Amino acid sequence: MAGKIIIVGMGPGDSSMMTGEAFEAMKNSDIIVGYTVYVDLVRNLFEDKEFFTTPMKQEIERCKACFDFALDGKNVAFICSGDAGVYGMAAPMYELSEQYPEVELTVIPGVTAALSGAALLGAPLNHDFCVISLSDLLTPWELITKRLEAAIHGDFAIAIYNPSSKKRHDHLQKACDIMINAGAELDRACGYVENIGRDGTKTCTCTLRELRDSEVNMFTTVFVGNSRSRLINGKIVTPRGYRINE
Amino acid sequence: MAGKIIIVGMGPGDSSMMTGEAFEAMKNSDIIVGYTVYVDLVRNLFEDKEFFTTPMKQEIERCKACFDFALDGKNVAFICSGDAGVYGMAAPMYELSEQYPEVELTVIPGVTAALSGAALLGAPLNHDFCVISLSDLLTPWELITKRLEAAIHGDFAIAIYNPSSKKRHDHLQKACDIMINAGAELDRACGYVENIGRDGTKTCTCTLRELRDSEVNMFTTVFVGNSRSRLINGKIVTPRGYRINE
Repeated sequence: MAGKIIIVGMGPGDSSMMTGEAFEAMKNSDIIVGYTVYVDLVRNLFEDKEFFTTPMKQEIERCKACFDFALDGKNVAFICSGDAGVYGMAAPMYELSEQYPEVELTVIPGVTAALSGAALLGAPLNHDFCVISLSDLLTPWELITKRLEAAIHGDFAIAIYNPSSKKRHDHLQKACDIMINAGAELDRACGYVENIGRDGTKTCTCTLRELRDSEVNMFTTVFVGNSRSRLINGKIVTPRGYRINE
Repeated sequence: MAGKIIIVGMGPGDSSMMTGEAFEAMKNSDIIVGYTVYVDLVRNLFEDKEFFTTPMKQEIERCKACFDFALDGKNVAFICSGDAGVYGMAAPMYELSEQYPEVELTVIPGVTAALSGAALLGAPLNHDFCVISLSDLLTPWELITKRLEAAIHGDFAIAIYNPSSKKRHDHLQKACDIMINAGAELDRACGYVENIGRDGTKTCTCTLRELRDSEVNMFTTVFVGNSRSRLINGKIVTPRGYRINE
């Protein structure tokens, strides 16, 4: 009989930011599968467990390995950082599942970087918001541009994933220019967080003009407020609309 | 000396979907404050704890009570369902904090309904997405309309909060009409979840045309795919863009 696969959102990394059901899914599995870096974050929690890792850019091989382990009768915990359904492996797993109808899939949600980063910066996403990735590995830059423009036109607060990489060091600057040209004010409240929930967490709040000239790395999540966001004692606050002083 | 306030996202309700740090924050507090319904979900976990609740529509009174308890020297865990920074109390707390400079605020993130609902429906938010509330108690309907249109123009997947209430039973229908007029296909993959993480969880996947004519209640989170989303074995899957069959 085929094993089951649970696709687990493990949160930003630190085990204290994992949900109880994510922990239980890993504990009760026969094998934990994931990207090498994320598996290394949980190895010490489950020392007698079997592990299987693949490096970056081998995502589909990693997915197929999960199905192969399940066909061998193993119950698999397939771990993703943050939430498995936000730029994670949930979608490709469901797409592949058409080829493996005997294998049951379940997704366990986790705290994605939009939420964990927002908490460190104050309340930047406390009204309607968008989440946009600047990675053009799988998405044409024209579509990323269109989404950044639409986000500004709709006056959304924005969480930006994958703002930079070795090959794309100027993507955040380009994105800021697109947002400014779409009408975002230069002094809009912005910020970013590096290494959320891991060693070396670093936060910064700034204006959109300053964000444009900031150097960020691939472990950074960026936040752009909406037109009503403001900085309060170094925190980005996007008001919900309550009348506070009455 | 003033106590500290930790604003805690408790996830959808079930304690298994809470993070470890959310649980610890409640356990280590002197008093747990929140909306009556959410406090009732954690009372049995912390039986010897002091609790303070206020009913719906008394959000600012609830916030001010937290500061008053802190000024009395108590460490406060202020709980919100889902994530405290997504339509939660984090923003009004930071706005009020200007009046209470001696009180330290911390936010602990939690699994918001966009993530927990998405996990139950498959992977509807697995590419760029928006989160939009249809509640016009604090937001003009014109702005909600503008955001729904922008979300479709940007081809975002969408999570919709507060799709209905006793006084606004037709808001979801109006929102669907706005999205259809903005160019969303009638057969777009959609779905909704009622009572996530609580008794009576119910999921449904459907087309946008069917969603328009669905009756949902105030405990429902609605999902609208992007133009590339599709239904696979009853799950909504928004592809990330991986080439699956090569």
